[in-house]
Amino acid sequence: VRIAELSERTGLPVATIKFYLRDGLLMPGAATAPNQATYGEEHVERLRLIRILAEVGGLSLGRIRDVVRAIDDPAVRGQAAVRAALHALGPVRDGPPAEVVAPDERRARDEADRFVDDELGWQVSSSAPGRRALGAALAALRRSGADVDASILRPYARAADWLASEETESFEARVPTDDVVQRVMVRTVVLDAALTALRHLAREHRAAVASRTAPAG
Amino acid sequence: VRIAELSERTGLPVATIKFYLRDGLLMPGAATAPNQATYGEEHVERLRLIRILAEVGGLSLGRIRDVVRAIDDPAVRGQAAVRAALHALGPVRDGPPAEVVAPDERRARDEADRFVDDELGWQVSSSAPGRRALGAALAALRRSGADVDASILRPYARAADWLASEETESFEARVPTDDVVQRVMVRTVVLDAALTALRHLAREHRAAVASRTAPAG
Repeated sequence: VRIAELSERTGLPVATIKFYLRDGLLMPGAATAPNQATYGEEHVERLRLIRILAEVGGLSLGRIRDVVRAIDDPAVRGQAAVRAALHALGPVRDGPPAEVVAPDERRARDEADRFVDDELGWQVSSSAPGRRALGAALAALRRSGADVDASILRPYARAADWLASEETESFEARVPTDDVVQRVMVRTVVLDAALTALRHLAREHRAAVASRTAPAG
Repeated sequence: VRIAELSERTGLPVATIKFYLRDGLLMPGAATAPNQATYGEEHVERLRLIRILAEVGGLSLGRIRDVVRAIDDPAVRGQAAVRAALHALGPVRDGPPAEVVAPDERRARDEADRFVDDELGWQVSSSAPGRRALGAALAALRRSGADVDASILRPYARAADWLASEETESFEARVPTDDVVQRVMVRTVVLDAALTALRHLAREHRAAVASRTAPAG
């Protein structure tokens, strides 16, 4: 198909698609004439992935570039590709480099590592950004005055693991695409957002119910 | 305390604190002389909240401004304040206004509303941004080729509700602050991030285990 149809099918302006092409986020089409090319289903899928990462995941262009690069690397396949794409996804807030991490956060990261490795026994690489995110969360809770240790994370780990198993069973079969890594990325970003939204709704619901059953005042 | 000590206790540069003061994110201190003021515990707490919203939650300055405004509004208290702050928190991706929402996303939003109101029976206001986020998630899954309806959200709603009840029981008592709304905000943002991190780690773990038990190839 031509670029105009690509725009129609993905809802993205032609100028945006051209920008993604120049930027390397979208692979080039097959040249049919100078300054003219034709595109296929893989281009439609890629543009949809970019849109989901940006609009649902709220990822920056730089982060999207990392995810796409991980997916496209022909040397990295299978489980390694899933891991590379997950790591590119973050969560990595643009924090300070490791050597200037505050002592309380460094301690919290060590506790988070022990929690993941020893208590949960999960097999994740030492560079997984989720580890640092857990340490940052623990440090942030303490800075806000909460007297907590890594055991506060137990119910969240349990929910995360349960959802991962549900997803494997119920969802895997319903997404008709050969690209496992792309599929994992879309599902992860979209369902992360859905879960966060549901958590906020659940909170609002519980606040509403509590205010109705509490004594007036 | 003086602004230099405020900087020391919160880890934020003096220039950043001055910017927050000019911007109204941080309430003014008590003037002790022209161009000099003294600050209290409420300033330390506010700066920590801003830092957590920015660094852990990844919120923009504009979004942080909305959250702080909701917390500070003296006319809004109790459950209404929790709701206002949750709504300010989002998730609101800067999407198109309602009237230009694509038809498939509009349908998905209606389905999400029915899911929240009829199936879950949650008491949340019709303007809750989480509703729109659920619709966007459902539409995004479909655009990626997944043949799903709102029932895909069931396990996530179950996990979100279970976590909300766990948090109420186990965590509420451990955070020593009078400011309920500020407390809810910190906890929501930090534990959203922790849960997302744990979901990514759980995925990586399951991919590692699966690749080890699957036949080579």
